[in-house]
Amino acid sequence: MDNLPKCPANYTTLTPLTFLMRASASYANRPSVIHEGTKFTWSQTYDRCRRLASSLRGLNISKNDVVSVLAPNIPAMYEMHFAVPMAGAVLNTINIRLDPKNIATILRHSEAKVFFVDYEFVSRAKEALRILMEEKNQTEQYSSLPLVIVIDDINSPTGIRLGELEYEQMVHHGNPNYFPEEIQDEWSPIALNYTSGTTSEPKGVVYSHRGAYLSTLSLILGWEMGSEPVYLWTLPMFHCNGWTFTWGIAARGGAKASEKRPIKNPVNILTGGAPPPAALLEEIESIGFHVTHAYGLTEATGPALVCEWQKKWNVLPKREQSSLKARQGVSVLTLADVDVKNLKTMESVARDGETMGEIVLKGSGIMMGYFKDNEANAKAFEDGWFRTGDVGVIHKDGYLEIKDRSKDVIISGGENISSVEVENVLYMHPKVLEAAVVAMPHPKWGESPCAFVSLKKNNDEKKRSDFFSVTEDEIIGHCRKNLPHFMVPKKVIFMEELPKNGNNKFLKNELRDKAKCLVVNHEENKNKKTNNQVNQNNHQILTMSRL
Amino acid sequence: MDNLPKCPANYTTLTPLTFLMRASASYANRPSVIHEGTKFTWSQTYDRCRRLASSLRGLNISKNDVVSVLAPNIPAMYEMHFAVPMAGAVLNTINIRLDPKNIATILRHSEAKVFFVDYEFVSRAKEALRILMEEKNQTEQYSSLPLVIVIDDINSPTGIRLGELEYEQMVHHGNPNYFPEEIQDEWSPIALNYTSGTTSEPKGVVYSHRGAYLSTLSLILGWEMGSEPVYLWTLPMFHCNGWTFTWGIAARGGAKASEKRPIKNPVNILTGGAPPPAALLEEIESIGFHVTHAYGLTEATGPALVCEWQKKWNVLPKREQSSLKARQGVSVLTLADVDVKNLKTMESVARDGETMGEIVLKGSGIMMGYFKDNEANAKAFEDGWFRTGDVGVIHKDGYLEIKDRSKDVIISGGENISSVEVENVLYMHPKVLEAAVVAMPHPKWGESPCAFVSLKKNNDEKKRSDFFSVTEDEIIGHCRKNLPHFMVPKKVIFMEELPKNGNNKFLKNELRDKAKCLVVNHEENKNKKTNNQVNQNNHQILTMSRL
Repeated sequence: MDNLPKCPANYTTLTPLTFLMRASASYANRPSVIHEGTKFTWSQTYDRCRRLASSLRGLNISKNDVVSVLAPNIPAMYEMHFAVPMAGAVLNTINIRLDPKNIATILRHSEAKVFFVDYEFVSRAKEALRILMEEKNQTEQYSSLPLVIVIDDINSPTGIRLGELEYEQMVHHGNPNYFPEEIQDEWSPIALNYTSGTTSEPKGVVYSHRGAYLSTLSLILGWEMGSEPVYLWTLPMFHCNGWTFTWGIAARGGAKASEKRPIKNPVNILTGGAPPPAALLEEIESIGFHVTHAYGLTEATGPALVCEWQKKWNVLPKREQSSLKARQGVSVLTLADVDVKNLKTMESVARDGETMGEIVLKGSGIMMGYFKDNEANAKAFEDGWFRTGDVGVIHKDGYLEIKDRSKDVIISGGENISSVEVENVLYMHPKVLEAAVVAMPHPKWGESPCAFVSLKKNNDEKKRSDFFSVTEDEIIGHCRKNLPHFMVPKKVIFMEELPKNGNNKFLKNELRDKAKCLVVNHEENKNKKTNNQVNQNNHQILTMSRL
Repeated sequence: MDNLPKCPANYTTLTPLTFLMRASASYANRPSVIHEGTKFTWSQTYDRCRRLASSLRGLNISKNDVVSVLAPNIPAMYEMHFAVPMAGAVLNTINIRLDPKNIATILRHSEAKVFFVDYEFVSRAKEALRILMEEKNQTEQYSSLPLVIVIDDINSPTGIRLGELEYEQMVHHGNPNYFPEEIQDEWSPIALNYTSGTTSEPKGVVYSHRGAYLSTLSLILGWEMGSEPVYLWTLPMFHCNGWTFTWGIAARGGAKASEKRPIKNPVNILTGGAPPPAALLEEIESIGFHVTHAYGLTEATGPALVCEWQKKWNVLPKREQSSLKARQGVSVLTLADVDVKNLKTMESVARDGETMGEIVLKGSGIMMGYFKDNEANAKAFEDGWFRTGDVGVIHKDGYLEIKDRSKDVIISGGENISSVEVENVLYMHPKVLEAAVVAMPHPKWGESPCAFVSLKKNNDEKKRSDFFSVTEDEIIGHCRKNLPHFMVPKKVIFMEELPKNGNNKFLKNELRDKAKCLVVNHEENKNKKTNNQVNQNNHQILTMSRL
């Protein structure tokens, strides 16, 4: 029975490109993209993508070449998610918040052949190319600069250029009958996304056509996105390809609308990253939004876990609902398996909601690997699992809850302390705006928690001095009320704003460096009553913050 | 970039078995199966499947062996959809309406090693086995009879047996820690389903793990089945594995409830086969049901097209909505492509809603092929497409509409006549219960349509003679009002009941044989006023029907 042969009729390559072809056949006249004055239908979008793909081939772009793009959420950005792989190339979207040096790093590492630049980012792109040119002259390491194509404003062209080529002209001169490059093997690259590099150099995460296809289905299924959705693009498309919504919207025949409209219920919100605090969840749901909480990472093509709502929870008190909703939940449908393993033995932890371990994943939605980084690949893939580097627990009902990044866990007297748990308690304090907890050296316990905190500003300008009225002792007292003693921060450092990277993630490494210079002397702090006084004792902090 | 290696963390076999593992981890305590007094949770179902799989291994069942089952929609039938492939074997579900001869044919062709039989069907199974035994003695062709395992009533055991083995005992004695046989290759068989064989011997359609997985996702997506559905099993599981709902319910963590409950809106109905008449659709929607119409075939693992509703249709008149809804629609999401091709040139037909052609499909949800039938495979797979044998059109909006089975198309004077279109008009007549139109020889036009019709019975027993009061001329007149002249049946034959096969499909071959014996003489019929008189002119028909 297993000698039945595969053929093109019963074994087709899994690739998200089929979603666009299908949308153009099935939803030809439905809106695909709405952006200010510009509106396209699915058949127009397909036509434009074929034209652009043929123009890219005309520039000698060939299989597995990297095409980079620096652009916000504009129609061109959407189209390139299809057009670039249609030309057989690999799409590399670059975070628009990066500086020229970081952009140059990515162009160098990816060996991009073409670089699309939105007209608004031309000066930054120019500077990045200058850095590369300089390197080229000095080291001869970087063989050729990418060909630059400017994306002018589609609604009101500005004429801004960097070289000869412009996006709309490429589309215009392309062949609408171009037949997309056939993807022979679903295990071939479709996208290359760089991690934000909070702890090291950015790593290039490679997605396959198969992985992108399955992750897109997962997302639609996990979020229960019906057909004809109207999707408001708030998530940048450069971020994990908009978590595959770029491809998913075509799968569902939806329109991306960026215009304001009156809100009709129900509006579904999918949120990732840190779980929204219970109070915020309560508030937002009370005005008619439905929030789903997901957990993912670039390496998993976006969401890997979704907190699937259970109907029996509908009768619980709102507060309890919110804390259930703030968990990371169960694996998305196409993920093959998820587990939480003991960090040392790599055995599964007990399903008690308490025992912490590292979250590991497996499934065809996991990246092909890091580009040109065998060392990172060896660390990430172990024993048939992908190691997320996140620490979590499994509750009795099978729902996962993340406790921390593994490198952020504080080990105090042999006890694991989740920095996130301490931060959650800090956020419960009415005056705390931002909170980050890291390990600081402790003579007796090895490590102990140190809190960095910024405070909410008083809206009333005259009372703005209120903002200084919280003391370290008050914060520590608040933590004592809500945490076991060993988890309470031994030190609280106030800053006007916590340091963050381009993705708005706290730079905990920087905070850890600061914390390393501190010596615990709780007795001494007891006598200090104000934040200002504390800061005077930690001058190295003051110089870094803008207090 | 494409030298990044596949590993078990980022390249996992696509198989529906992962849905059960995930359900058992994520929805452990939610109900999985409710059947009269029996209730299981997902963790119990997983446990039972592992036990059964281990018991099957204990019976020397090995990779790719066929396990047949003759049972209605009972918990065991559901469990075997997972337990049999967990043992590495291939599940073959047999239509419970088949007679012993047909059952014997399937057991012989599939070379089944094990045969599960529901206690209600023991006598039929016995007779099928007797036929095989006889053959074995005569021809030595059939080497060994399958091992029989009776499935006793789980709620009230009857003690009925056929041999030693019983299902619940197999489960009970199985190993709950059995580790499911690893599916190394997703292109390996999971199920074997026989076609109903209206026109020839039943053909054994083989599904792969990959195909079943993707078809399941398609179905959930196409039907927009949310999480925690309560699914009423009216579709027999033996029919295309319940169109993959068997696996899909596990994917969604739903319960199969077969008990009666008060209906709460919205209730979604998915219907396949012939499109529901507009009037019926209107009626059923008015009482709160939401109907989605799908088109599929065993070879496509169930639904291949779904009539996706478009929001803009909401404002149309009900009658127009119903006719839009009765179309077969657009391809399901994981189907790679669908087209309608000219029967001779195999070129795509115009998208005009009029030009007929054969519907062809491609995608990983299409069967691996027919089991031991190279000739049928050669016919079915052509030029990279799977030929459905159905004739249809594509409308301007990309929606497909089926006109007929290709072999049922009537070619009259060079014009193609869809038998379905003529039948639809016959069904519009208030007294028509069943209608089937086939070709009959015509001296001038080659073929012309011949209608076989059964009439509704008058509920009032006394007026039952009303039932004979429709004349052939009345029916033909009705058709003339609603069809182009060349499409109007030249003959109408009344029967008490039209001949059907085990799946309730009309046996058009049988009707064609009858029609071949008819000679068109419309003038003669004109003078006949009653059905009885017409039938007297067609004695060969009368003897076949039960009038």
